[in-house]
Amino acid sequence: MSSVFGRKLKISIFGQSHAEAIGVVIDGFPAGFAVDREALQAFMARRAPGNNAFSTPRKEADEVEFLCGLVDGVTCGAPITAVIRNTNTRSGDYRELFDQPRPSHADYPADIRYGGAQDVRGGGHFSGRLTAALCVAGGLCLQYLEKQGVAVGAHIAAIGGVKDTPFDAVHVTAGDFPKGTFAVCDAAAGERMRAAIEAARSEGDSVGGVIECAAVGLPAGVGDPMFDGLENRLSQAVFGIPAIRGIEFGNGFEAATLYGSQNNDCYYDDNGTVKTYTNHHGGVLGGISTGMPLLFRVAVKPTPSIGKEQQTLNRRTGQVEPLVVRGRHDPCIVPRAVACVEAACAVVLCDYLL
Amino acid sequence: MSSVFGRKLKISIFGQSHAEAIGVVIDGFPAGFAVDREALQAFMARRAPGNNAFSTPRKEADEVEFLCGLVDGVTCGAPITAVIRNTNTRSGDYRELFDQPRPSHADYPADIRYGGAQDVRGGGHFSGRLTAALCVAGGLCLQYLEKQGVAVGAHIAAIGGVKDTPFDAVHVTAGDFPKGTFAVCDAAAGERMRAAIEAARSEGDSVGGVIECAAVGLPAGVGDPMFDGLENRLSQAVFGIPAIRGIEFGNGFEAATLYGSQNNDCYYDDNGTVKTYTNHHGGVLGGISTGMPLLFRVAVKPTPSIGKEQQTLNRRTGQVEPLVVRGRHDPCIVPRAVACVEAACAVVLCDYLL
Amino acid sequence: MSSVFGRKLKISIFGQSHAEAIGVVIDGFPAGFAVDREALQAFMARRAPGNNAFSTPRKEADEVEFLCGLVDGVTCGAPITAVIRNTNTRSGDYRELFDQPRPSHADYPADIRYGGAQDVRGGGHFSGRLTAALCVAGGLCLQYLEKQGVAVGAHIAAIGGVKDTPFDAVHVTAGDFPKGTFAVCDAAAGERMRAAIEAARSEGDSVGGVIECAAVGLPAGVGDPMFDGLENRLSQAVFGIPAIRGIEFGNGFEAATLYGSQNNDCYYDDNGTVKTYTNHHGGVLGGISTGMPLLFRVAVKPTPSIGKEQQTLNRRTGQVEPLVVRGRHDPCIVPRAVACVEAACAVVLCDYLL
Amino acid sequence: MSSVFGRKLKISIFGQSHAEAIGVVIDGFPAGFAVDREALQAFMARRAPGNNAFSTPRKEADEVEFLCGLVDGVTCGAPITAVIRNTNTRSGDYRELFDQPRPSHADYPADIRYGGAQDVRGGGHFSGRLTAALCVAGGLCLQYLEKQGVAVGAHIAAIGGVKDTPFDAVHVTAGDFPKGTFAVCDAAAGERMRAAIEAARSEGDSVGGVIECAAVGLPAGVGDPMFDGLENRLSQAVFGIPAIRGIEFGNGFEAATLYGSQNNDCYYDDNGTVKTYTNHHGGVLGGISTGMPLLFRVAVKPTPSIGKEQQTLNRRTGQVEPLVVRGRHDPCIVPRAVACVEAACAVVLCDYLL
Repeated sequence: MSSVFGRKLKISIFGQSHAEAIGVVIDGFPAGFAVDREALQAFMARRAPGNNAFSTPRKEADEVEFLCGLVDGVTCGAPITAVIRNTNTRSGDYRELFDQPRPSHADYPADIRYGGAQDVRGGGHFSGRLTAALCVAGGLCLQYLEKQGVAVGAHIAAIGGVKDTPFDAVHVTAGDFPKGTFAVCDAAAGERMRAAIEAARSEGDSVGGVIECAAVGLPAGVGDPMFDGLENRLSQAVFGIPAIRGIEFGNGFEAATLYGSQNNDCYYDDNGTVKTYTNHHGGVLGGISTGMPLLFRVAVKPTPSIGKEQQTLNRRTGQVEPLVVRGRHDPCIVPRAVACVEAACAVVLCDYLL
Repeated sequence: MSSVFGRKLKISIFGQSHAEAIGVVIDGFPAGFAVDREALQAFMARRAPGNNAFSTPRKEADEVEFLCGLVDGVTCGAPITAVIRNTNTRSGDYRELFDQPRPSHADYPADIRYGGAQDVRGGGHFSGRLTAALCVAGGLCLQYLEKQGVAVGAHIAAIGGVKDTPFDAVHVTAGDFPKGTFAVCDAAAGERMRAAIEAARSEGDSVGGVIECAAVGLPAGVGDPMFDGLENRLSQAVFGIPAIRGIEFGNGFEAATLYGSQNNDCYYDDNGTVKTYTNHHGGVLGGISTGMPLLFRVAVKPTPSIGKEQQTLNRRTGQVEPLVVRGRHDPCIVPRAVACVEAACAVVLCDYLL
Repeated sequence: MSSVFGRKLKISIFGQSHAEAIGVVIDGFPAGFAVDREALQAFMARRAPGNNAFSTPRKEADEVEFLCGLVDGVTCGAPITAVIRNTNTRSGDYRELFDQPRPSHADYPADIRYGGAQDVRGGGHFSGRLTAALCVAGGLCLQYLEKQGVAVGAHIAAIGGVKDTPFDAVHVTAGDFPKGTFAVCDAAAGERMRAAIEAARSEGDSVGGVIECAAVGLPAGVGDPMFDGLENRLSQAVFGIPAIRGIEFGNGFEAATLYGSQNNDCYYDDNGTVKTYTNHHGGVLGGISTGMPLLFRVAVKPTPSIGKEQQTLNRRTGQVEPLVVRGRHDPCIVPRAVACVEAACAVVLCDYLL
Repeated sequence: MSSVFGRKLKISIFGQSHAEAIGVVIDGFPAGFAVDREALQAFMARRAPGNNAFSTPRKEADEVEFLCGLVDGVTCGAPITAVIRNTNTRSGDYRELFDQPRPSHADYPADIRYGGAQDVRGGGHFSGRLTAALCVAGGLCLQYLEKQGVAVGAHIAAIGGVKDTPFDAVHVTAGDFPKGTFAVCDAAAGERMRAAIEAARSEGDSVGGVIECAAVGLPAGVGDPMFDGLENRLSQAVFGIPAIRGIEFGNGFEAATLYGSQNNDCYYDDNGTVKTYTNHHGGVLGGISTGMPLLFRVAVKPTPSIGKEQQTLNRRTGQVEPLVVRGRHDPCIVPRAVACVEAACAVVLCDYLL
C-alpha cells in the first residue's frame, strides 16, 4: 500500500520519472460525466514545467492519454486510466546518485526501504513529476465539483520572505482565485517573488514558500469525525506532494498564541444561512465543514536539487565529498505546486461529495 | 467510516462523552505480548483530567477495563477491547446547546451532519474525552515500540507566547523526554506557562499552545511513498485529536523561508551509521524515515469552551444572544494533549513496524 | 486486520468465548434511527443456544448491552458499541486442548498463527459464540433494510440428506420466510430433520446441512463490478461464520452442468418492471443486482466438536491418542446458523444501500 | 470502489473490452524481484483466446507492456503498471445491445447501475477480457510464490457432466498440476470434455463446468480469523472472475451431508510435521492454513453469449423478441478460466505472505 488514496473515489498513482510513463487509475468516478479535455489540459498546464523563466527548462508536453473509462469523452463508470508518456528524459544525469544520495531527497531512505532496487533515475517514484498524475485526477474532480457548485483555488502565499495578500477568510469567492502559472492575488508581490526566485537561481540555489488553498461553495455538514475528517484526509492527500513540510487549517499555528475569546468564531444568521463573523476555524470544526470557506496553508520547502556544491557522504568511499547535483531543476517549485495542492484538495472533496 | 484507523493495526474508537462508556477495539496487535497494566495506567494519568490546578476539576478515574484480547494479562491475538466507564457526568449542563451551538465547537457542523440526532451532551463523540480511548491504544503501542527500541516523547513547546526549549533535532534521546503531567524541558518556562494559563483561567478564558513530538530509535527505511508516508499517516492520526489545527515536520513552515543550501541536510558516516549533520527534515524524507530523530510539532487551539460571555446565534430565536458555556472546562488542554500526541504517534509507528 | 468488515458501514467484532465479553462496534450506521430493542432481542433469540432439545444445553441470556451510539434508543451517528457478557462459561473443560488440538477446529492453525498465545478456552475468538456479535450488527441492519423495503430471510435447506422445499427463485416474497428457531418451509421436512439431528446426538455425533438465503425488494443496479460485487462481498462476510464451507449464487454448482440455452434467464416487461422468466442467476449478474430475488446457499459442515472418541495427535507425547471432546456442544448448528447468515447478508446489503 | 483488491498487495484493474487498453496497477509487490517475462507470457497464453478449436476464434496477442515499476526487468518498489492493448475489436457487433440486453450478461444491471452511460461494447468493464489483467498480476505473484516454495495449480474438474479425476486432497504435489491450455489430469476425460464442448458449439450453444484449484507448500498458520481468512479473501477474489457462480473449500457442499465423525480430519505427526490423515477441510480451518494442501472448487456457468436464438425483452419496443447474439464467443470458457482461478489464488496468497 502506498500510492492508492480514497474511499468511494480511489486513485492509484503509478510511474517513475524516467519510466516509460506515469499515470493514474481513478476508480469510482461517477458515470455519465462529460470530461472537458481542454479544461483538463489547461489545468495540467498550470503545473507543467517550462512555463516561465523560473521553472525547469525541460519541455514536457504532459499530454494526457486516456486508456479507458471514457466512451466518446463521457465517463462510463469503469475505472478511468490516464497516462502521460515520459518523453524528455536524460538518464545519464543521475548515475552518481547511486553512490552519493542527494541531501534532503528521498534517495537515501528509499534506497534503504527498497534494498537498493529503487529506481534512482530522476527520483523515480518520488519525483515531483508524479504530481502530474495527481493533477489528472484532481482536474477531473475539479470539473465534477464545479457542477456541484464547489470551487477550489490556491495561490502562492509566500516565496522566501515575500508574502502575497492572503484570501479574505470570510468573504473569499471563486472570483478571487488567481489564474495562470504564477498565481498571486497581488501582482506587485508577485514581482518581488519573481525577483526572489531569480536571486536564488543566479546563485545556483533554490527557495521555498507557502501555498494557501480555499474551497468555496462547500455546504455545512461535509466530513466525518475523528480519523476521517476533512483535516485528516486533506493532510493525508497533501503530504503526497513532495516537498510539503507542514499544513495548517484556518489560522493554524497562530491559534496557539491566542485566547479562546479571540479565536472563537461566533455564529449569526445571514438571511437563513448560519455563518460566522470571523473564520479562524478555516471552515472546518471536528472534521466537518461549517459552510464557511475552507482554508488551509501548506509549507513548501526549497527544492533540494541545487546547483551549488554541497559537502555530503559518498557511500562508496565512506567520505564526505563535494556534490553538484546535475540535471535541470526548478529554483522554486512553489508556483507549479499551486495546481497540485488544488488537485489534492479536489480529490478529497470529491470523495466526500460522491 | 470515521473512527477506524490503521492498516495492519486497526483501531476503532467508540463512545460519547456522556454515554455509558468510551473505548477502543485494537485489531492486529501482536499475540503473546505481556501488557504492563501499571505502566498503561500511568500513561493514562498523563492525559487524565484533574491532575493539577489548571485542568478541569472533574475527577475521572479513567480506569481501563479490558473486555477481551488478553489471557492472564498477555495478548492472545484476538482483538483487544478496552472500555472506560463514564462515571462523573452532569448532562444537565448542556441542554441549551441544542439551540445555541457553542462557537468553534463541533456542535453546529455535527448537527447538520447528523440531521439533529447528534449526541450533544458534553460534545458527544467529538469530545476531547474520546482521546482517552486513543491513549489506551497508544499506551499499548508505546510498550510494543519500547521492546523494538523505539521511544516516543513529546513536550509542551509553547503555551500562548511562552516557549519551552525545543528538542535538539540532531541529538535528542529518550532521556530528554520530560515526564509528568506538565511536560516541559525547561522548568522555568514551565512556570511562566502556568502563569499564562492562570491568567486565562482567571478571566474565564482559555489559551492555546504547541506540542513538539519526537521518536528516537526508528531505523532508516520505515514508511511508504506518496499517500502512506510517515507524514501522511501521522497527520491523519494527529488530526483525530480535537483542537489540533496544524502540523509541521522538521523545520516545517520555517523551511518556506529558507534557501535550499540552508535547508538541505548533508550526510556523513558516523561509525557505520549514515547520519545528517543537521535535521531540518525531521527524520523523514519522501514519507520514509532517514534514521535521524523523527520530529513534528502540532498547533493546539485554545479550548473553545470558555466561561466568558460570547455573542452568538440562538437558532431557535434566530437572534444573536449572549452565551456563557457552563460545565467544567480546562483553561488549557495543551498539557493533557501531550500524551494524546504521543499516543497518535505510537499507533502510527507501531502499524509500520508490525 | 481480521475482524473488521465493510466500507461505509464498518463492523469490528471482538471477544473470545470465555473472555469477559464479546461485542461489536458498528461505525457508519445512519443517525436518527430508532432501534427496536425488542425486535433485536427476538432476532438474537433465533441464534441463541438452548432454544430447543437439539442445541447446546448452555443457557446464555445473550442480553445485548449498548455502551454508546444511542441516545434514548435512537442512533446519534457516533459508532454503536454493543457487548454481550459471557456469563456461563466453564473453562475447566478445555484444558487438555493445549496438548491435543481438536480435529477440524481452528485450534491447531490458530496455535501456529499466534505462536501459542491463542486463547484456547472454548475456541477463543474462533468460537461460534462470536456470531452473536455479528447478529447484533445484522439485527440492526435488518431493521434499516426493512425501512428501505428490503427483506432478508433464510431457512434450513437441508440437514444431512433431508431437504426442505427450496424458495421459489422467481416468486419468493417476505411472506415466505419461515420464522422461529427451526426455520423450515415444509414442516414435515422439519420433522425428518429433527429426527436426523436426534440420531446424530444419540451417537455422540453431529450432522451438517445447507442454508438458503433470499433478499427481496432489492432494486436492480445495486452492487459494483469485479472485486466489490454482491457475490464478492456476501461471500467475504458469510465465510466469517465458522463452519461455512461453500457458497453458491442462484443455481450455483448446478449451472456447471447446464447448456447456456438452459441457464440463461430471458427478460420480459412486467408492467413496467424488467423481470426474468427464470432466476438461475440468483438476482445478481456481474456483481450487480437485477431486481429479481437475491438467492444464495451455503454449506455448513457438521460441528467438529463431537462426543464420540477420535484418534488424533497428542503434541506433547507425539502419539496419536484417543480424544473425547468434553463440554456442551450442539449436535447440529445449522438451525442457529440461519440467523447468522441473515445477519451477514443484511450487513452487506446495508453497506451498499447507505 | 470496485476493481481494487488487496491489503499489502493492492491490485487495481482497469479497462473495457473495446477501450484502447486494459491493464493493472500492482502496488506493494516486493522490490528487487527479477520478473521472468517469458514465463509470464507463457502463463498469459494459457488464458489467451484462440488457443484451440473450442475457444473464440479471435486472435489476441495479449502482449503485456510494462509502463513502470521495473528497471531492467527488476521490480523497483514503485507500483507496477502493465497494459495490454485491445487490437482486434469489432465494435459494430454490439450496437443492438443498447436496446436488447443479453440474457444472463451484466448488460442490464450495469445499465441501471451506471444510468445508461455504461460501455456496452463487448461487455465493457464486465468482459471476461479483463481477466487478462488479473492474470498479469497473478502471473507475477506465481513467480514470487514459487521462490517461497508455494505452487498453485488448477485443472478442469468437469465440463457439463464429464468429470476429470480430482486432485488427491492429501498427497497432491506441484508435479500433479497439469500444464497446457486444456488442463486435465485424465487425458481420456479430456477427450470426452472436448466432445461435450464440440456438441454445444455445433448447436450454437455453450456449456459450463467446474475448476479445482490447489496450493501446495503453504505452511500452517497463514491467514486471519473471521473476515480476513483464506476462504473470505479467496472467495472475494475468485468472484471477480465473470461466470463464477459458486465456491467450496475442501469437501464443501458434501460436508453438509456428513456426520462430524466422518468429516473430521484427525492429526498425526509425520516426522515432525503435523498432518491430517484426510483433508476434508481443504487445508484451511477458521481462515488459517493447516499445512495440508489448500483445495477449493469453483462453478463456472455456461457462457451466456450463445448463437442460438433467444426470446428476450427489447426495451425499446417493450416486447419480447428474438435475439441472436452476434460476435465471436467461446462455447466453453472453462479451459481458459483455469489460469484465471490460479491467478486469483496467487494474488491472495502473495498478499498474505508479503
